Amino acid sequence: MFKPLISALAQFTAATAGRNMTKAAYVAVTVGVLSMVLLTDNRARGARGWVDSLLWTCLAYFVFEWLVRLRHMRQQGRLSLYVSSSAGIVDAIGALAVPAALLLGVDPRTAWLLGVLWVLKVIPGIPGLRQLRRVLVLESGPLVSVLVIFLTVVFLASVAEYFLERDVQPQTFGSVPAALWWAVVTLTTTGYGDAVPVTPLGRMVAAAVMISGLGVFGLWTGILATGFAAETRRDNFLKTWESVSKVPFFAALGPAAIADVTHMLRTMELPARTMIIRKGAQGDCMYFIAAGEVEVELPGKKVQLGEGAFFGEMALLGNNKRGANVSTTKVSRLLVLDLVDFRVLMARHPDLAETIDAEARRRALENK
Amino acid sequence: MFKPLISALAQFTAATAGRNMTKAAYVAVTVGVLSMVLLTDNRARGARGWVDSLLWTCLAYFVFEWLVRLRHMRQQGRLSLYVSSSAGIVDAIGALAVPAALLLGVDPRTAWLLGVLWVLKVIPGIPGLRQLRRVLVLESGPLVSVLVIFLTVVFLASVAEYFLERDVQPQTFGSVPAALWWAVVTLTTTGYGDAVPVTPLGRMVAAAVMISGLGVFGLWTGILATGFAAETRRDNFLKTWESVSKVPFFAALGPAAIADVTHMLRTMELPARTMIIRKGAQGDCMYFIAAGEVEVELPGKKVQLGEGAFFGEMALLGNNKRGANVSTTKVSRLLVLDLVDFRVLMARHPDLAETIDAEARRRALENK
Amino acid sequence: MFKPLISALAQFTAATAGRNMTKAAYVAVTVGVLSMVLLTDNRARGARGWVDSLLWTCLAYFVFEWLVRLRHMRQQGRLSLYVSSSAGIVDAIGALAVPAALLLGVDPRTAWLLGVLWVLKVIPGIPGLRQLRRVLVLESGPLVSVLVIFLTVVFLASVAEYFLERDVQPQTFGSVPAALWWAVVTLTTTGYGDAVPVTPLGRMVAAAVMISGLGVFGLWTGILATGFAAETRRDNFLKTWESVSKVPFFAALGPAAIADVTHMLRTMELPARTMIIRKGAQGDCMYFIAAGEVEVELPGKKVQLGEGAFFGEMALLGNNKRGANVSTTKVSRLLVLDLVDFRVLMARHPDLAETIDAEARRRALENK
Amino acid sequence: MFKPLISALAQFTAATAGRNMTKAAYVAVTVGVLSMVLLTDNRARGARGWVDSLLWTCLAYFVFEWLVRLRHMRQQGRLSLYVSSSAGIVDAIGALAVPAALLLGVDPRTAWLLGVLWVLKVIPGIPGLRQLRRVLVLESGPLVSVLVIFLTVVFLASVAEYFLERDVQPQTFGSVPAALWWAVVTLTTTGYGDAVPVTPLGRMVAAAVMISGLGVFGLWTGILATGFAAETRRDNFLKTWESVSKVPFFAALGPAAIADVTHMLRTMELPARTMIIRKGAQGDCMYFIAAGEVEVELPGKKVQLGEGAFFGEMALLGNNKRGANVSTTKVSRLLVLDLVDFRVLMARHPDLAETIDAEARRRALENK
Repeated sequence: MFKPLISALAQFTAATAGRNMTKAAYVAVTVGVLSMVLLTDNRARGARGWVDSLLWTCLAYFVFEWLVRLRHMRQQGRLSLYVSSSAGIVDAIGALAVPAALLLGVDPRTAWLLGVLWVLKVIPGIPGLRQLRRVLVLESGPLVSVLVIFLTVVFLASVAEYFLERDVQPQTFGSVPAALWWAVVTLTTTGYGDAVPVTPLGRMVAAAVMISGLGVFGLWTGILATGFAAETRRDNFLKTWESVSKVPFFAALGPAAIADVTHMLRTMELPARTMIIRKGAQGDCMYFIAAGEVEVELPGKKVQLGEGAFFGEMALLGNNKRGANVSTTKVSRLLVLDLVDFRVLMARHPDLAETIDAEARRRALENK
Repeated sequence: MFKPLISALAQFTAATAGRNMTKAAYVAVTVGVLSMVLLTDNRARGARGWVDSLLWTCLAYFVFEWLVRLRHMRQQGRLSLYVSSSAGIVDAIGALAVPAALLLGVDPRTAWLLGVLWVLKVIPGIPGLRQLRRVLVLESGPLVSVLVIFLTVVFLASVAEYFLERDVQPQTFGSVPAALWWAVVTLTTTGYGDAVPVTPLGRMVAAAVMISGLGVFGLWTGILATGFAAETRRDNFLKTWESVSKVPFFAALGPAAIADVTHMLRTMELPARTMIIRKGAQGDCMYFIAAGEVEVELPGKKVQLGEGAFFGEMALLGNNKRGANVSTTKVSRLLVLDLVDFRVLMARHPDLAETIDAEARRRALENK
Repeated sequence: MFKPLISALAQFTAATAGRNMTKAAYVAVTVGVLSMVLLTDNRARGARGWVDSLLWTCLAYFVFEWLVRLRHMRQQGRLSLYVSSSAGIVDAIGALAVPAALLLGVDPRTAWLLGVLWVLKVIPGIPGLRQLRRVLVLESGPLVSVLVIFLTVVFLASVAEYFLERDVQPQTFGSVPAALWWAVVTLTTTGYGDAVPVTPLGRMVAAAVMISGLGVFGLWTGILATGFAAETRRDNFLKTWESVSKVPFFAALGPAAIADVTHMLRTMELPARTMIIRKGAQGDCMYFIAAGEVEVELPGKKVQLGEGAFFGEMALLGNNKRGANVSTTKVSRLLVLDLVDFRVLMARHPDLAETIDAEARRRALENK
Repeated sequence: MFKPLISALAQFTAATAGRNMTKAAYVAVTVGVLSMVLLTDNRARGARGWVDSLLWTCLAYFVFEWLVRLRHMRQQGRLSLYVSSSAGIVDAIGALAVPAALLLGVDPRTAWLLGVLWVLKVIPGIPGLRQLRRVLVLESGPLVSVLVIFLTVVFLASVAEYFLERDVQPQTFGSVPAALWWAVVTLTTTGYGDAVPVTPLGRMVAAAVMISGLGVFGLWTGILATGFAAETRRDNFLKTWESVSKVPFFAALGPAAIADVTHMLRTMELPARTMIIRKGAQGDCMYFIAAGEVEVELPGKKVQLGEGAFFGEMALLGNNKRGANVSTTKVSRLLVLDLVDFRVLMARHPDLAETIDAEARRRALENK
């Protein structure tokens, strides 16, 4: 009964062995983790058989996917690279953790808990992850400083509270580890309320710890916000640079001006048949086509614009409303020029302004 | 008895059918939601009759408003646009949700709860909403990354806690869903205290989750702060650009200088008869009139200044105190030039400085 | 017995009637509020007599201060301005609230609680308050938007929870007001734990509310951080501008360059006899004297430097260590030029670099 | 038995008496504090003997280290400087606090708690601490303002809650100090839940306090984020400036251009034998050698590059993949030029672009 399913999986997986995550894998992770969660819930005991078979199916899929990838990588001579990469390790864990636990005689209900590790497969597919990691790496110095300060405050506060509260509440503050628990819960402003100082001095120390908690929050956020702002600028510049130099419209500019223009543009990747501009909507940006093709729905005819063309400038020059629907016909990469930057650019480069003006006039004439 | 009320409403609503929210609608939303709240409170049982009639009045108002708008839009040929717009959907929900529930036989006390959806009518009227939405859209990539990281931590932590605490606290950690609840409450640093790990290992995992909570906060805030800073600059530039090019004072400047000036100005919309400058107050900015008119109360006479004029420059040039009261006579749009930017502008454009100086001297002479 | 005290107070207050807060007022506020706190604590019942007399003394001081100020303002013809100013209102409340309550027959223990309003007297003296207020005013648009979003989420969530939990927990979720309390406690991530949803659906709604709480935090902080960054730059520029144009060293620069230099400098106000530079310390900035005088302790002699002079440049040019102790002799205002900006400034203005170099050489020779 | 250990310690400590923290000191702090924690835990009672001897060993180490340092500093004539420095005070406390407590007859279990002060020895070693301290000092004005606002809200709210709740909950809101505890716990959004208002008015006040808590968070973070961003830029500029002017490649640039370039570079300190570039990886930056030496693993031979050389430019110019492994041979200081800034730099300084292009062509030829 599983044979046709497996053969279909094999084809599908083989076709996408090089990619990080297929749609099938997303489905398998979702189904697998949900089944694992249901397995622990007594209310779902009736459906135990279904849940079990779902789990085994997911596991089979992950083992299968892993084997296909191993084979694919060996054929390409990148086996050792794959095995030692983080994706390879996550794939191996996803395929082997549960079976290994079952073979070692762990109780099945506990062994299947390892299925939660399947969620790790999702992480490499997160779009902004590289950006976040770069921020954390570049700002690791100050972040570690804040962490050390955090831990120092936790240690000093917990010893102080242990000293002040141990006689009054031997249950909750009877040892420094117990007081450490209180300190972490308090300094992160979580505040469960399972351990609360009651002596006046203990409460004063606690108040100081809570206010320090705000400070730790603030420093932490400040560091990350600073790093993130720098990283966003960098990321956008990199994505846009390549495309800009390929648009003939900008080719006349010198390299310094291109760097300048790049800072103003934003790259947008669009699938085929996506509406970009809706007739009658407010217009606040214009577009350059770096790759792909768009179709403008003029009254009575449709006009195609290819790589290097621009559109959407008329709403910026004259009336604010968009004059026609525009949508992509292929997968396209567009460069977006915001209204603000449009004006600054036109002011700095009068020759570009003239080119756009001339084209807009030509189009306006044609449309009449 | 309701007839004159309804007729007045009809006139009022018809007059403002094009606007998003009339003052009457704000009143109706406030009264309606408060009545709905009171309906659920046993202490207000005595006033049940009053509350009921208030609710019915509000509902009638919303149905009426919706019908007026539908008619108005059909007359303008924008019916389908309105019906599919978010405002149209909110209006339809406000008018139909409660009656539909009552017709379907839902208990009235429950049906009226749907009146809470009336608060949605307020949202399109929020001034900074477009700005906030743009930030969320532009930064959606990194925000989703942080959310995925958040959910991954929640999943891993809850399975770990379930494993570590299930034998000690079967009530609160008896299934992964229960542990998931704990994880969300902890990672958001809410910390109700209804589920608290008690084993040493469980507490270590929990401490790690709480510290990750700070990190999630920090990343989230950093992303939003970055996006917001960029959006604020853009928004202000757009609002100011149009006005600047219409002020004759700046007309002599080239387009590059106008873009430069626009970055320094801030737009301010004022109703008629508003005091702008109070005599004797500290002066830290000057004003250009983009639209409308202001009146300067000089000793013994009142002087009107119209579009294109400027005022408030004397406190920036000489003594810091304002020399006269100034207030608007009509709805006016002013461009505000801060003291800091005034100095930078004067330094960069000596010709503007001269114009302002000459005018200030002329006025000082006149006042003596 | 109080007579000499009152007469001393009268002299002191009269001398400083124009200032916002005297040191005596700070003492009175601290003593008064602490006494008020003690009055409510049963452990301090023994000292009741002392506490009462302290409270009456403080009240007498505030009444006295208020009367002195009223007289002073009337003499200066600014009585109506003072009475309607926030400082005047706070002074009036501080002087009249408690006596009025006592006269109206309120129980003394309750009446004295109004003494907490004395802390309002401290607020106008906070140094950065004007800056904070400007940020809140300028960013009020987006802040109000976030607040409206916050309240909308609170309303929708509380009605949902009331609907989902009212049958299971009639005590805590028995009415919408009760559910509103839960929603505010949750959305601010306070999480007391006195009201906690227990149904699966209720918990899902609650999890969504908590995650929204993070978003509200993030938006709020992002807005404030953006506004604050702009305000800090502005504030520093304003404080520094006046001083820069008075330092002869910068007089040779054109106005554009002065605006440029102003952005690099930071103003520092110092009392007399304050150590500015300690011999042997790391040097990372140089100083210009905008007002006042400093004394350099050279080996064997002391040299005075007056307005317009600069010092501390030698550690930036050659070795990093400070060569001598420097301290103020009078109240002084210094302009601080950071090492980073020193280098940028020297690079952009070679003539300034030469002047500083020549002076540094002359001093180095002299010291040998 | 301890003799050889002590003698080894003596040698080690003597060798590093000038440095802040030796590795041995880190070990001693970790062991000492963990032992102190264990001492308070009843579960570890069996190992009491071991724990005691570990504590005495650590204490002996700290006393020993302190004496060695005192002797070292006296020899260098910096004894008084050291004793009054923060490091000297921390060392003295670490060596003397526990013995002093024991001599004063304090119970040993309590006396050893003072061992927690040993963690203070770690603080001066934190890398980013100076940066954090500068931010706190420079922004102290607004931070203090926010703190005063925080305390004002705490005072007003606690008196209001005391008034509203004292009759209903005399246990938790029976005095203003008790209400103050509630206010701090609430305003920091900790929310233990040990004191919760129950009256409707009390809850309204509490809701206002919680929302103010968000505001305090936001202001605090905004201030710190602003300060941190400025400080990061400054810190990086200072670290990089020295190195840039020593790289011959940049020597041809004028001082203004060097200041410009310095803003683009980032300094990186690397130990010997560290891999910098891995063949086949994505290349997004190039490197200049400010000090030290690197080794490039070309096919069949290894090439050394010394001070002033650059590498990694080929991945930026042509294909994106790194062409060879590169690692350090000595402790090296590299200047990193990011891809973004590389392009901006090449655009602004065409002569630099030519030099790099020529070198890249020469190398490409050589490699073929």
